[in-house]
Amino acid sequence: MENILKENERIDDLELNNLKIIQRTDGFCFGIDSVLLSDFAKGIKRNNKVLDLGTGTGILGLLLCAKTNLKQITGIEVQTEIAEMAKRTIKLNNLEDKFDIINANIKELDKILKLDYYDSIVTNPPYKKANSGKINENEIKLISRHEIKADLSDFIKMSFKLLKDRGSLYMVHRTERLADIISEMRLNKIEPKRIRFVYSNSTSDSKLVLIEAVKNGKSFLKIEKPLYVYNEDGTYTDEILEIYNKK
Amino acid sequence: MENILKENERIDDLELNNLKIIQRTDGFCFGIDSVLLSDFAKGIKRNNKVLDLGTGTGILGLLLCAKTNLKQITGIEVQTEIAEMAKRTIKLNNLEDKFDIINANIKELDKILKLDYYDSIVTNPPYKKANSGKINENEIKLISRHEIKADLSDFIKMSFKLLKDRGSLYMVHRTERLADIISEMRLNKIEPKRIRFVYSNSTSDSKLVLIEAVKNGKSFLKIEKPLYVYNEDGTYTDEILEIYNKK
Repeated sequence: MENILKENERIDDLELNNLKIIQRTDGFCFGIDSVLLSDFAKGIKRNNKVLDLGTGTGILGLLLCAKTNLKQITGIEVQTEIAEMAKRTIKLNNLEDKFDIINANIKELDKILKLDYYDSIVTNPPYKKANSGKINENEIKLISRHEIKADLSDFIKMSFKLLKDRGSLYMVHRTERLADIISEMRLNKIEPKRIRFVYSNSTSDSKLVLIEAVKNGKSFLKIEKPLYVYNEDGTYTDEILEIYNKK
Repeated sequence: MENILKENERIDDLELNNLKIIQRTDGFCFGIDSVLLSDFAKGIKRNNKVLDLGTGTGILGLLLCAKTNLKQITGIEVQTEIAEMAKRTIKLNNLEDKFDIINANIKELDKILKLDYYDSIVTNPPYKKANSGKINENEIKLISRHEIKADLSDFIKMSFKLLKDRGSLYMVHRTERLADIISEMRLNKIEPKRIRFVYSNSTSDSKLVLIEAVKNGKSFLKIEKPLYVYNEDGTYTDEILEIYNKK
């Protein structure tokens, strides 16, 4: 196993179907957002052709492979080092026949991939605008968290090009960006159809939002019941435990 | 008191500062949405110059006069019969010196009112698109509920013209229209800053949404904790009781 890991990396057990994931020890690890999005994206079916835009460690693809027994998913990752790490994770899990990684910038995908083709796109894009990062963040974290290589508009525009008519885009993002997201989607004919807000607890504002939008969909938005992460006593809510156990 | 009422009208007691309201007996009555909006519009101060676009019975103005002891509010109502009824309500409450009604279409207000002038606008606009009404609705209800005389875009465009820089627009609307609202606001430089979703109970989708948007505001949206109307046993939640008692 030694040679599959590089410096500053470790293997974590997802505790699901024996899946394992390679992550960096300096903080580039998957969070609750990917787990919640993989659960929210219920509409994805086994035979769907699926893309993950900005795949990072590959966590979303791994979770979707496990949950829906997906036949085919392609992850796009702009950072060569991270794309290469995700490939090793796929190999480690013997998923090479269903999960592949392309090392490319989102903005170039229309030159590489089929247009009007994918049933579903999932994405956990960089949350913050460029130039809003802490100066001491390392470059890998900076690029995965900030809109440096591609911004929200690039993710949405490319999703429209790649999705088939009525295909779904599933996105997790910071709630504070919701007006940006909705207006960008509208401009690009990807209609927000279903939103769920994630709240830390029953007295807090929402920090995270899950969105399903449909290419060329009709205007009618459903805001689902809130998703709370913690109970008042600080323990996880039953719903979060259930999502993690299904994981 | 007899001569203040016309056919199909009755006087209801708001049970607050002895305020009374004239409403029609055939269903054109204020609902929880106006009460929730008057509570949500906490930012309105006593000295603010305030407009209510689509004032109907005058309920929002009455509630704001009572809650904030407002000095001046103008209600705009397109339906002559309803505008005239609201005027009688104002007279009944001796509020003629602070609350006036203009019988006009929202779309014409830039010819009548001062531009870039108002501190705050409140609105409970028609919820439904034109041509989506039940055929058997009477004309008064049809116009107050459907975008027949003016649509969402008209309400937002005119709000931008009338509000002063950084002035606030407070709106209550159907949640299903949220993508329309946010993208229309963005297009017209009124930035959604604060949203609260109203849920019937903890297991339902949201049907009603409260929005505060700021003319020329910066992009950063806050989604506040959910507002639940009913407890599991069907009684009102403490927060609703508190809002109604403050009313």
